[in-house]
Amino acid sequence: MRIDVLSLFPEMFEGVFGSSILKSAADRGLISFHVTNFRDYAENKHHRVDDYPYGGGAGMVLAPQPIFDAVDAVKQSGVKPRVIMLCPQGEPYTQKKAEELAKEEQLILLCGHYEGFDERIRESIVTDEISLGDYVLTGGELGAMVIADSVTRLLPSVLGNDESALTDSFSTGMLEHPQYTRPSSFRGMDVPDVLLSGHHQRIKEWRAKQSLERTWKRRPELLRDIPLTKQQQTWLAEWQDKV
Amino acid sequence: MRIDVLSLFPEMFEGVFGSSILKSAADRGLISFHVTNFRDYAENKHHRVDDYPYGGGAGMVLAPQPIFDAVDAVKQSGVKPRVIMLCPQGEPYTQKKAEELAKEEQLILLCGHYEGFDERIRESIVTDEISLGDYVLTGGELGAMVIADSVTRLLPSVLGNDESALTDSFSTGMLEHPQYTRPSSFRGMDVPDVLLSGHHQRIKEWRAKQSLERTWKRRPELLRDIPLTKQQQTWLAEWQDKV
Repeated sequence: MRIDVLSLFPEMFEGVFGSSILKSAADRGLISFHVTNFRDYAENKHHRVDDYPYGGGAGMVLAPQPIFDAVDAVKQSGVKPRVIMLCPQGEPYTQKKAEELAKEEQLILLCGHYEGFDERIRESIVTDEISLGDYVLTGGELGAMVIADSVTRLLPSVLGNDESALTDSFSTGMLEHPQYTRPSSFRGMDVPDVLLSGHHQRIKEWRAKQSLERTWKRRPELLRDIPLTKQQQTWLAEWQDKV
Repeated sequence: MRIDVLSLFPEMFEGVFGSSILKSAADRGLISFHVTNFRDYAENKHHRVDDYPYGGGAGMVLAPQPIFDAVDAVKQSGVKPRVIMLCPQGEPYTQKKAEELAKEEQLILLCGHYEGFDERIRESIVTDEISLGDYVLTGGELGAMVIADSVTRLLPSVLGNDESALTDSFSTGMLEHPQYTRPSSFRGMDVPDVLLSGHHQRIKEWRAKQSLERTWKRRPELLRDIPLTKQQQTWLAEWQDKV
Protein backbone atom coordinates (compact mmCIF):
# COMPACT_ATOMS: atom_id res chain seq x y z
CA MET A 1 0.00 0.00 0.00
CA ARG A 2 0.96 3.59 -0.62
CA ILE A 3 -0.32 6.47 1.53
CA ASP A 4 -0.03 10.04 0.22
CA VAL A 5 -0.72 13.01 2.42
CA LEU A 6 -1.35 16.48 0.99
CA SER A 7 -0.71 19.10 3.66
CA LEU A 8 0.55 22.64 4.16
CA PHE A 9 2.61 21.39 7.15
CA PRO A 10 4.60 18.36 5.92
CA GLU A 11 7.06 18.66 8.83
CA MET A 12 4.26 17.63 11.21
CA PHE A 13 4.44 14.05 9.89
CA GLU A 14 8.13 13.30 10.37
CA GLY A 15 7.88 12.14 13.97
CA VAL A 16 4.84 9.94 13.49
CA PHE A 17 5.84 8.32 10.18
CA GLY A 18 9.44 7.97 11.44
CA SER A 19 8.80 6.11 14.72
CA SER A 20 7.64 2.83 16.14
CA ILE A 21 5.39 0.50 14.14
CA LEU A 22 4.84 2.83 11.15
CA LYS A 23 8.57 3.26 10.63
CA SER A 24 9.23 -0.44 10.92
CA ALA A 25 6.43 -1.25 8.44
CA ALA A 26 7.84 1.24 5.94
CA ASP A 27 11.42 -0.01 6.47
CA ARG A 28 10.24 -3.53 5.66
CA GLY A 29 8.51 -2.34 2.46
CA LEU A 30 5.00 -3.21 3.69
CA ILE A 31 3.79 0.37 3.09
CA SER A 32 5.19 3.68 1.87
CA PHE A 33 4.34 7.16 3.16
CA HIS A 34 4.65 10.29 1.00
CA VAL A 35 3.91 13.79 2.22
CA THR A 36 3.38 16.55 -0.36
CA ASN A 37 2.98 20.26 0.30
CA PHE A 38 0.19 21.27 -2.07
CA ARG A 39 1.43 24.86 -1.88
CA ASP A 40 4.14 23.71 -4.31
CA TYR A 41 1.39 23.20 -6.91
CA ALA A 42 -0.19 26.68 -6.64
CA GLU A 43 0.11 28.29 -10.06
CA ASN A 44 -0.13 31.90 -8.89
CA LYS A 45 2.96 34.03 -8.36
CA HIS A 46 2.91 34.02 -4.55
CA HIS A 47 1.97 30.35 -4.10
CA ARG A 48 -1.27 31.28 -2.43
CA VAL A 49 -3.51 28.31 -1.66
CA ASP A 50 -6.49 30.12 -0.14
CA ASP A 51 -8.78 33.01 -1.02
CA TYR A 52 -11.84 34.85 0.32
CA PRO A 53 -15.18 32.98 0.35
CA TYR A 54 -17.78 33.91 -2.27
CA GLY A 55 -20.76 35.40 -0.52
CA GLY A 56 -18.63 36.87 2.27
CA GLY A 57 -17.93 35.72 5.81
CA ALA A 58 -14.92 35.21 8.06
CA GLY A 59 -12.00 32.96 7.21
CA MET A 60 -10.30 31.78 4.06
CA VAL A 61 -11.21 28.90 1.76
CA LEU A 62 -8.74 26.47 0.15
CA ALA A 63 -8.87 27.03 -3.62
CA PRO A 64 -9.42 24.13 -6.02
CA GLN A 65 -6.44 24.45 -8.41
CA PRO A 66 -3.49 23.52 -6.13
CA ILE A 67 -5.30 20.51 -4.70
CA PHE A 68 -6.60 19.20 -8.05
CA ASP A 69 -3.08 19.41 -9.50
CA ALA A 70 -1.38 17.87 -6.44
CA VAL A 71 -3.82 14.94 -6.48
CA ASP A 72 -3.15 14.42 -10.20
CA ALA A 73 0.58 14.44 -9.49
CA VAL A 74 0.59 11.79 -6.74
CA LYS A 75 -1.93 9.39 -8.31
CA GLN A 76 -0.20 6.14 -9.24
CA SER A 77 -0.80 4.94 -12.79
CA GLY A 78 -3.17 2.01 -13.11
CA VAL A 79 -4.49 2.50 -9.56
CA LYS A 80 -7.85 3.90 -8.52
CA PRO A 81 -6.97 5.66 -5.26
CA ARG A 82 -9.32 6.50 -2.41
CA VAL A 83 -9.15 10.29 -2.05
CA ILE A 84 -10.07 11.08 1.54
CA MET A 85 -10.91 14.52 2.87
CA LEU A 86 -10.45 15.02 6.61
CA CYS A 87 -13.23 17.37 7.72
CA PRO A 88 -15.80 17.87 10.48
CA GLN A 89 -18.58 17.19 7.95
CA GLY A 90 -17.25 13.68 7.21
CA GLU A 91 -18.54 10.34 8.43
CA PRO A 92 -17.32 9.47 11.93
CA TYR A 93 -14.29 7.18 11.63
CA THR A 94 -14.67 3.58 12.82
CA GLN A 95 -12.65 0.36 12.95
CA LYS A 96 -14.88 -1.00 10.16
CA LYS A 97 -13.81 1.88 7.92
CA ALA A 98 -10.15 1.22 8.78
CA GLU A 99 -10.61 -2.41 7.70
CA GLU A 100 -12.19 -1.28 4.44
CA LEU A 101 -9.37 1.18 3.67
CA ALA A 102 -6.72 -1.42 4.50
CA LYS A 103 -7.73 -3.32 1.32
CA GLU A 104 -6.86 -0.41 -1.02
CA GLU A 105 -3.69 0.08 -3.06
CA GLN A 106 -3.41 3.83 -2.54
CA LEU A 107 -4.92 6.35 -0.10
CA ILE A 108 -4.61 10.09 -0.75
CA LEU A 109 -5.37 12.07 2.41
CA LEU A 110 -6.30 15.77 2.06
CA CYS A 111 -5.57 17.91 5.12
CA GLY A 112 -7.41 21.21 5.31
CA HIS A 113 -6.90 24.33 7.37
CA TYR A 114 -8.67 27.68 7.63
CA GLU A 115 -12.39 27.69 6.83
CA GLY A 116 -12.21 24.48 4.78
CA PHE A 117 -12.15 23.37 1.17
CA ASP A 118 -13.78 24.80 -1.94
CA GLU A 119 -16.86 22.64 -2.47
CA ARG A 120 -15.76 21.61 -5.99
CA ILE A 121 -12.91 19.58 -4.46
CA ARG A 122 -15.45 17.64 -2.43
CA GLU A 123 -17.79 17.13 -5.39
CA SER A 124 -15.28 16.18 -8.01
CA ILE A 125 -12.24 14.29 -6.68
CA VAL A 126 -13.02 13.17 -3.15
CA THR A 127 -14.25 9.59 -2.65
CA ASP A 128 -14.63 9.70 1.16
CA GLU A 129 -15.04 12.37 3.82
CA ILE A 130 -13.94 11.34 7.29
CA SER A 131 -14.16 13.00 10.72
CA LEU A 132 -12.19 11.66 13.69
CA GLY A 133 -14.95 12.52 16.11
CA ASP A 134 -17.10 15.41 17.31
CA TYR A 135 -14.32 17.77 18.33
CA VAL A 136 -12.59 20.64 16.53
CA LEU A 137 -8.91 20.45 15.52
CA THR A 138 -6.66 23.13 14.02
CA GLY A 139 -6.31 21.13 10.79
CA GLY A 140 -6.68 17.77 9.11
CA GLU A 141 -3.15 16.53 9.83
CA LEU A 142 -3.92 14.59 13.01
CA GLY A 143 -6.80 12.88 11.23
CA ALA A 144 -4.47 11.80 8.44
CA MET A 145 -2.04 10.37 11.03
CA VAL A 146 -4.84 8.46 12.75
CA ILE A 147 -5.97 6.92 9.45
CA ALA A 148 -2.39 6.05 8.47
CA ASP A 149 -1.75 4.43 11.86
CA SER A 150 -5.02 2.50 12.16
CA VAL A 151 -4.79 1.20 8.57
CA THR A 152 -1.08 0.30 8.67
CA ARG A 153 -1.43 -1.91 11.74
CA LEU A 154 -4.06 -3.97 9.88
CA LEU A 155 -1.80 -4.80 6.92
CA PRO A 156 -0.47 -8.37 6.73
CA SER A 157 2.86 -8.91 8.58
CA VAL A 158 2.94 -5.42 10.15
CA LEU A 159 2.21 -6.61 13.67
CA GLY A 160 4.05 -9.62 15.07
CA ASN A 161 2.07 -12.79 15.82
CA ASP A 162 2.07 -11.96 19.47
CA GLU A 163 0.74 -8.43 19.01
CA SER A 164 -1.94 -9.35 16.50
CA ALA A 165 -3.16 -12.11 18.78
CA LEU A 166 -4.09 -9.46 21.35
CA THR A 167 -7.69 -9.19 22.31
CA ASP A 168 -8.13 -5.60 21.18
CA SER A 169 -11.03 -3.61 22.47
CA PHE A 170 -13.54 -3.34 19.60
CA SER A 171 -12.36 -6.52 17.89
CA THR A 172 -14.42 -8.50 20.41
CA GLY A 173 -16.98 -5.71 20.51
CA MET A 174 -16.43 -5.23 24.27
CA LEU A 175 -14.05 -3.18 26.38
CA GLU A 176 -11.08 -5.08 27.72
CA HIS A 177 -10.81 -6.51 31.24
CA PRO A 178 -8.28 -5.10 33.74
CA GLN A 179 -4.65 -6.24 33.40
CA TYR A 180 -2.00 -6.52 36.10
CA THR A 181 1.72 -7.23 36.08
CA ARG A 182 4.49 -7.46 38.70
CA PRO A 183 4.88 -6.61 41.51
CA SER A 184 1.87 -8.37 43.06
CA SER A 185 1.78 -5.65 45.72
CA PHE A 186 2.62 -2.04 44.83
CA ARG A 187 2.22 0.90 47.20
CA GLY A 188 -0.33 -1.10 49.17
CA MET A 189 -2.38 -2.13 46.13
CA ASP A 190 -2.67 -5.85 45.46
CA VAL A 191 -3.34 -7.90 42.35
CA PRO A 192 -6.70 -9.74 42.65
CA ASP A 193 -6.17 -13.22 44.15
CA VAL A 194 -7.83 -15.03 41.27
CA LEU A 195 -5.09 -13.91 38.85
CA LEU A 196 -2.44 -15.46 41.13
CA SER A 197 -4.41 -18.70 41.59
CA GLY A 198 -3.19 -20.48 38.47
CA HIS A 199 -6.77 -21.72 37.97
CA HIS A 200 -7.25 -21.10 34.26
CA GLN A 201 -11.00 -21.61 34.15
CA ARG A 202 -11.63 -19.18 36.99
CA ILE A 203 -9.26 -16.60 35.48
CA LYS A 204 -11.06 -16.84 32.15
CA GLU A 205 -14.43 -16.40 33.83
CA TRP A 206 -13.23 -13.46 35.95
CA ARG A 207 -11.90 -11.69 32.86
CA ALA A 208 -15.07 -12.29 30.84
CA LYS A 209 -17.17 -10.92 33.70
CA GLN A 210 -14.95 -7.85 34.17
CA SER A 211 -15.01 -7.13 30.46
CA LEU A 212 -18.80 -7.35 30.33
CA GLU A 213 -19.23 -5.24 33.48
CA ARG A 214 -16.90 -2.51 32.25
CA THR A 215 -18.69 -2.37 28.90
CA TRP A 216 -22.10 -2.30 30.55
CA LYS A 217 -21.09 0.54 32.91
CA ARG A 218 -19.13 2.68 30.46
CA ARG A 219 -20.47 2.02 26.97
CA PRO A 220 -23.79 0.14 27.24
CA GLU A 221 -24.63 0.99 23.62
CA LEU A 222 -21.84 -1.38 22.47
CA LEU A 223 -23.77 -4.34 23.91
CA ARG A 224 -26.69 -3.86 21.56
CA ASP A 225 -24.97 -5.57 18.63
CA ILE A 226 -23.22 -8.44 20.42
CA PRO A 227 -24.79 -11.88 20.81
CA LEU A 228 -24.55 -12.73 24.53
CA THR A 229 -24.12 -16.18 26.07
CA LYS A 230 -26.53 -17.49 28.72
CA GLN A 231 -23.86 -16.79 31.39
CA GLN A 232 -23.42 -13.20 30.21
CA GLN A 233 -27.18 -12.65 30.23
CA THR A 234 -27.36 -13.94 33.80
CA TRP A 235 -24.60 -11.55 34.96
CA LEU A 236 -26.28 -8.61 33.25
CA ALA A 237 -29.61 -9.43 34.88
CA GLU A 238 -27.94 -9.55 38.33
CA TRP A 239 -26.36 -6.11 37.89
CA GLN A 240 -29.52 -4.60 36.50
CA ASP A 241 -31.48 -5.88 39.49
CA LYS A 242 -29.13 -3.99 41.81
CA VAL A 243 -29.55 -0.61 40.10
CA MET B 1 -1.43 26.01 30.83
CA ARG B 2 1.17 23.26 30.88
CA ILE B 3 0.74 19.98 29.01
CA ASP B 4 2.95 17.01 29.92
CA VAL B 5 3.04 13.89 27.81
CA LEU B 6 4.47 10.60 29.14
CA SER B 7 5.40 8.38 26.21
CA LEU B 8 7.90 5.74 25.13
CA PHE B 9 8.23 7.58 21.77
CA PRO B 10 8.93 11.25 22.57
CA GLU B 11 10.28 11.87 19.05
CA MET B 12 6.77 11.38 17.66
CA PHE B 13 5.72 14.75 19.11
CA GLU B 14 8.38 17.01 17.65
CA GLY B 15 6.60 17.71 14.36
CA VAL B 16 3.18 18.34 15.87
CA PHE B 17 4.28 20.46 18.84
CA GLY B 18 6.80 22.30 16.62
CA SER B 19 4.48 23.44 13.80
CA SER B 20 1.64 25.76 13.01
CA ILE B 21 -0.72 26.97 15.73
CA LEU B 22 0.71 24.85 18.58
CA LYS B 23 4.22 26.16 17.98
CA SER B 24 3.04 29.74 17.76
CA ALA B 25 1.02 29.40 20.98
CA ALA B 26 4.06 27.97 22.79
CA ASP B 27 6.39 30.65 21.35
CA ARG B 28 4.05 33.32 22.71
CA GLY B 29 4.06 31.71 26.17
CA LEU B 30 0.35 30.84 26.08
CA ILE B 31 1.07 27.16 26.74
CA SER B 32 4.07 24.89 27.28
CA PHE B 33 4.53 21.32 26.05
CA HIS B 34 6.80 18.81 27.80
CA VAL B 35 7.39 15.27 26.62
CA THR B 36 8.91 12.76 29.04
CA ASN B 37 10.04 9.22 28.27
CA PHE B 38 8.80 7.25 31.27
CA ARG B 39 11.39 4.58 30.48
CA ASP B 40 13.88 6.98 32.09
CA TYR B 41 12.08 6.40 35.40
CA ALA B 42 12.21 2.59 35.36
CA GLU B 43 14.16 1.51 38.43
CA ASN B 44 15.23 -1.89 37.16
CA LYS B 45 18.61 -2.46 35.59
CA HIS B 46 17.47 -2.76 31.98
CA HIS B 47 14.94 0.10 32.06
CA ARG B 48 12.11 -2.30 31.35
CA VAL B 49 8.68 -0.69 31.48
CA ASP B 50 6.53 -3.76 30.76
CA ASP B 51 6.12 -7.28 32.06
CA TYR B 52 3.96 -10.39 31.57
CA PRO B 53 0.30 -10.22 32.61
CA TYR B 54 -0.74 -12.01 35.79
CA GLY B 55 -3.13 -14.79 34.87
CA GLY B 56 -1.48 -15.36 31.49
CA GLY B 57 -2.40 -14.26 28.00
CA ALA B 58 -0.73 -12.63 25.02
CA GLY B 59 0.98 -9.25 25.14
CA MET B 60 2.82 -7.24 27.73
CA VAL B 61 1.43 -4.90 30.38
CA LEU B 62 2.92 -1.52 31.39
CA ALA B 63 4.14 -1.82 34.98
CA PRO B 64 3.09 0.72 37.63
CA GLN B 65 6.46 1.91 39.03
CA PRO B 66 7.88 3.90 36.06
CA ILE B 67 4.57 5.68 35.42
CA PHE B 68 3.87 6.50 39.08
CA ASP B 69 7.35 7.98 39.44
CA ALA B 70 7.23 9.90 36.14
CA VAL B 71 3.86 11.44 37.07
CA ASP B 72 5.28 12.47 40.47
CA ALA B 73 8.25 14.06 38.72
CA VAL B 74 6.29 16.23 36.27
CA LYS B 75 3.54 17.36 38.68
CA GLN B 76 3.84 21.09 39.29
CA SER B 77 3.81 22.13 42.92
CA GLY B 78 0.60 23.71 44.12
CA VAL B 79 -1.33 22.45 41.09
CA LYS B 80 -3.86 19.64 40.96
CA PRO B 81 -3.28 18.22 37.47
CA ARG B 82 -5.72 16.23 35.40
CA VAL B 83 -4.01 12.89 34.72
CA ILE B 84 -5.47 11.52 31.51
CA MET B 85 -5.04 7.99 30.23
CA LEU B 86 -5.52 7.49 26.50
CA CYS B 87 -7.13 4.07 26.08
CA PRO B 88 -9.90 2.28 24.17
CA GLN B 89 -11.83 1.84 27.44
CA GLY B 90 -12.04 5.62 27.96
CA GLU B 91 -14.98 7.93 27.44
CA PRO B 92 -15.34 9.01 23.78
CA TYR B 93 -13.71 12.43 23.37
CA THR B 94 -15.99 15.39 22.59
CA GLN B 95 -15.75 19.14 22.11
CA LYS B 96 -17.44 19.57 25.50
CA LYS B 97 -14.60 17.61 27.14
CA ALA B 98 -12.03 19.78 25.30
CA GLU B 99 -13.72 22.90 26.71
CA GLU B 100 -13.61 21.42 30.22
CA LEU B 101 -9.90 20.52 29.95
CA ALA B 102 -9.05 23.98 28.57
CA LYS B 103 -9.82 25.43 32.02
CA GLU B 104 -7.12 23.40 33.82
CA GLU B 105 -3.62 24.51 34.82
CA GLN B 106 -1.87 21.24 33.97
CA LEU B 107 -2.73 18.16 31.92
CA ILE B 108 -0.62 15.00 32.17
CA LEU B 109 -1.30 12.67 29.24
CA LEU B 110 -0.34 8.98 29.59
CA CYS B 111 0.34 7.18 26.31
CA GLY B 112 0.20 3.39 26.44
CA HIS B 113 1.41 0.70 24.10
CA TYR B 114 1.33 -3.11 24.14
CA GLU B 115 -1.58 -4.70 25.99
CA GLY B 116 -2.25 -1.59 28.09
CA PHE B 117 -1.64 -0.33 31.61
CA ASP B 118 -1.51 -2.12 34.95
CA GLU B 119 -4.92 -1.51 36.50
CA ARG B 120 -3.44 0.14 39.61
CA ILE B 121 -2.36 3.11 37.48
CA ARG B 122 -5.96 3.57 36.41
CA GLU B 123 -7.32 3.21 39.94
CA SER B 124 -4.87 5.35 41.78
CA ILE B 125 -3.50 8.29 39.77
CA VAL B 126 -5.69 8.69 36.68
CA THR B 127 -8.46 11.30 36.81
CA ASP B 128 -9.84 10.77 33.27
CA GLU B 129 -9.77 8.01 30.67
CA ILE B 130 -10.31 9.16 27.11
CA SER B 131 -10.74 7.34 23.80
CA LEU B 132 -10.54 9.22 20.48
CA GLY B 133 -13.19 7.05 18.91
CA ASP B 134 -14.06 3.44 18.18
CA TYR B 135 -10.95 2.49 16.24
CA VAL B 136 -7.69 0.82 17.25
CA LEU B 137 -4.37 2.69 17.16
CA THR B 138 -0.84 1.40 17.77
CA GLY B 139 -0.49 3.57 20.89
CA GLY B 140 -1.82 6.53 22.83
CA GLU B 141 0.43 9.15 21.21
CA LEU B 142 -2.03 10.32 18.53
CA GLY B 143 -4.71 10.68 21.18
CA ALA B 144 -2.40 12.90 23.24
CA MET B 145 -1.74 15.06 20.18
CA VAL B 146 -5.46 15.39 19.48
CA ILE B 147 -6.14 16.50 23.06
CA ALA B 148 -3.22 18.95 23.01
CA ASP B 149 -4.38 20.44 19.70
CA SER B 150 -8.09 20.70 20.50
CA VAL B 151 -7.43 22.20 23.94
CA THR B 152 -4.72 24.65 22.85
CA ARG B 153 -6.90 26.25 20.16
CA LEU B 154 -9.49 27.06 22.85
CA LEU B 155 -7.09 29.01 25.09
CA PRO B 156 -7.49 32.80 25.13
CA SER B 157 -5.44 34.64 22.43
CA VAL B 158 -4.28 31.44 20.68
CA LEU B 159 -6.45 31.95 17.60
CA GLY B 160 -6.65 35.34 15.93
CA ASN B 161 -9.94 37.23 16.01
CA ASP B 162 -10.63 36.22 12.48
CA GLU B 163 -10.06 32.52 13.08
CA SER B 164 -12.01 32.33 16.32
CA ALA B 165 -14.96 34.10 14.68
CA LEU B 166 -15.32 31.14 12.33
CA THR B 167 -18.55 29.24 12.45
CA ASP B 168 -16.98 25.93 13.37
CA SER B 169 -18.91 22.79 12.84
CA PHE B 170 -20.08 21.60 16.31
CA SER B 171 -20.01 25.08 17.83
CA THR B 172 -23.37 25.75 16.16
CA GLY B 173 -24.32 22.09 16.58
CA MET B 174 -24.73 21.64 12.82
CA LEU B 175 -22.40 20.74 9.95
CA GLU B 176 -21.11 23.67 7.98
CA HIS B 177 -22.55 24.81 4.63
CA PRO B 178 -20.50 24.53 1.39
CA GLN B 179 -17.83 27.17 0.76
CA TYR B 180 -16.49 28.44 -2.59
CA THR B 181 -13.65 30.71 -3.59
CA ARG B 182 -12.15 31.97 -6.86
CA PRO B 183 -12.27 31.21 -9.73
CA SER B 184 -16.04 31.31 -10.22
CA SER B 185 -15.67 28.67 -12.91
CA PHE B 186 -13.09 25.88 -12.55
CA ARG B 187 -12.82 22.90 -14.93
CA GLY B 188 -16.44 23.44 -15.94
CA MET B 189 -17.76 23.64 -12.36
CA ASP B 190 -19.47 26.90 -11.39
CA VAL B 191 -20.05 28.63 -8.07
CA PRO B 192 -23.81 28.76 -7.27
CA ASP B 193 -25.36 32.00 -8.60
CA VAL B 194 -26.73 33.07 -5.24
CA LEU B 195 -23.19 33.45 -3.80
CA LEU B 196 -22.29 35.87 -6.63
CA SER B 197 -25.55 37.85 -6.26
CA GLY B 198 -24.39 40.22 -3.53
CA HIS B 199 -27.82 39.75 -1.93
CA HIS B 200 -26.87 39.23 1.71
CA GLN B 201 -30.23 38.03 2.96
CA ARG B 202 -30.54 35.38 0.24
CA ILE B 203 -26.94 34.23 0.84
CA LYS B 204 -27.60 33.87 4.54
CA GLU B 205 -30.75 31.88 3.89
CA TRP B 206 -29.05 29.62 1.30
CA ARG B 207 -26.24 28.85 3.75
CA ALA B 208 -28.60 28.11 6.63
CA LYS B 209 -30.61 25.76 4.42
CA GLN B 210 -27.50 23.97 3.10
CA SER B 211 -26.16 23.56 6.62
CA LEU B 212 -29.42 22.07 7.84
CA GLU B 213 -29.75 19.77 4.82
CA ARG B 214 -26.21 18.46 5.13
CA THR B 215 -26.70 17.77 8.83
CA TRP B 216 -30.03 16.07 8.20
CA LYS B 217 -28.59 13.84 5.47
CA ARG B 218 -25.28 12.96 7.11
CA ARG B 219 -25.70 13.21 10.88
CA PRO B 220 -29.42 13.38 11.70
CA GLU B 221 -28.71 12.49 15.35
CA LEU B 222 -27.08 15.93 15.81
CA LEU B 223 -30.43 17.61 15.19
CA ARG B 224 -32.03 16.03 18.25
CA ASP B 225 -30.48 18.51 20.67
CA ILE B 226 -30.79 21.75 18.67
CA PRO B 227 -33.77 24.09 18.99
CA LEU B 228 -35.04 24.68 15.41
CA THR B 229 -36.65 27.86 14.05
CA LYS B 230 -40.02 27.78 12.29
CA GLN B 231 -38.23 28.16 8.95
CA GLN B 232 -35.92 25.25 9.69
CA GLN B 233 -38.84 23.06 10.72
CA THR B 234 -40.60 23.89 7.43
CA TRP B 235 -37.55 22.93 5.37
CA LEU B 236 -37.16 19.65 7.28
CA ALA B 237 -40.82 18.80 6.74
CA GLU B 238 -40.45 19.41 2.97
CA TRP B 239 -37.44 17.07 2.70
CA GLN B 240 -39.03 14.40 4.84
CA ASP B 241 -42.12 14.47 2.60
CA LYS B 242 -39.95 13.69 -0.42
CA VAL B 243 -38.32 10.60 1.10
